[in-house]
Amino acid sequence: MKLFALDTSTPRVVACYVDDEKKIFVELETKAKHGIQVSQVVEKMAEVDFGNLNIVGIGIGPGGLTGLRVGISFAYGLGIGNKFVQISSLKLIALNGLFYNGYIAVVRKAREGYLYSALYKPENGKLDEIVSPFIETVDLINERYREFSPKLFLGDGAEFFESDVKLNKFELSELSLPTARNLYLLACEEIENERFVNDIEPLYLQKSIAELNFEKRKKEGSV
Amino acid sequence: MKLFALDTSTPRVVACYVDDEKKIFVELETKAKHGIQVSQVVEKMAEVDFGNLNIVGIGIGPGGLTGLRVGISFAYGLGIGNKFVQISSLKLIALNGLFYNGYIAVVRKAREGYLYSALYKPENGKLDEIVSPFIETVDLINERYREFSPKLFLGDGAEFFESDVKLNKFELSELSLPTARNLYLLACEEIENERFVNDIEPLYLQKSIAELNFEKRKKEGSV
Repeated sequence: MKLFALDTSTPRVVACYVDDEKKIFVELETKAKHGIQVSQVVEKMAEVDFGNLNIVGIGIGPGGLTGLRVGISFAYGLGIGNKFVQISSLKLIALNGLFYNGYIAVVRKAREGYLYSALYKPENGKLDEIVSPFIETVDLINERYREFSPKLFLGDGAEFFESDVKLNKFELSELSLPTARNLYLLACEEIENERFVNDIEPLYLQKSIAELNFEKRKKEGSV
Repeated sequence: MKLFALDTSTPRVVACYVDDEKKIFVELETKAKHGIQVSQVVEKMAEVDFGNLNIVGIGIGPGGLTGLRVGISFAYGLGIGNKFVQISSLKLIALNGLFYNGYIAVVRKAREGYLYSALYKPENGKLDEIVSPFIETVDLINERYREFSPKLFLGDGAEFFESDVKLNKFELSELSLPTARNLYLLACEEIENERFVNDIEPLYLQKSIAELNFEKRKKEGSV
């Protein structure tokens, strides 16, 4: 098996390449745009024959719209005619808390005042999805998760919530980003369960500003 | 701060480079020797000015002797005149179980019949070292850890022990290897606590075959 997987849902682009001979995991966070970062990651995998992959895995979000578009387009270009597996970018972050004895709530900043979120429960090395990804305000996310305890909040929105584990700010920020190893683990879980897709379906959850503007203009009768 | 850190204690060489502009995390597992793997990792960090580092971090083991020697020599060459921080290669693996609600026993294969081991307890995002690294047989390790419960065993020797978490073989093998992100976290912990050293002290724990042979010959009066 020759697997390449990529997640561009956060400022830290993570990628893995695995075949019978080697495993290469790269994580890159720069001030460059996602398109540049993806190229930089690929440059670091110079020994990989990208024309000869079997499976392409891609983090489908939710997360930053532009980053996701770049990542998904790249995966499409790379994998066309091959098998794709889709990885939830929130689950990817939740996997940092794999051994937590309780619920893991991933919360990531979306449009002003809103957060993407999903809730997971670790069980023998796997994560059960308890609440599927949705987009809501801090108050309503708190409300929705009230019944679940204890909780660990991970993600760039974790500062708005109170975890039952006390992490310092630096560690929380690192544990709120994906890792290439976990991307590999989740890609393998998809492969094992034969959840292959032909079309990649990004999990945008929220409409882009262009779409919102278009709808607004449509409503106003100007388009 | 310009930090480079490296761990060569396992078949998966992991490295991180961090400055104000970028974070680069690389993990590489090939069939090549550690010396080659270190070069391959460095090649993947082409944008790094290795002549201009402030701090060099190095995984000091315990682990494979040759790998450690290669890594430590490289760190020495790279960091001479700079500050060094030392990272326990067992703690680095233990950090994979950061949120485990119990004790994490890292067990790694050493010379035939023996394992390196150390015991940690996670507490609010840090690991307390409960039992310092030592080398013993499976039976005596089990004996020594009897009073600690529940336990999670990580490392390439985990197959000889019974964890209170059931992981499948594939996940256990991945969670038994270091990650570059965790290397970065532990290096930062050393830096924060100003545990800088001038001389790197590898944690070999066991004598090399050359040393054992030499002692044997000395005892026999042939040297």
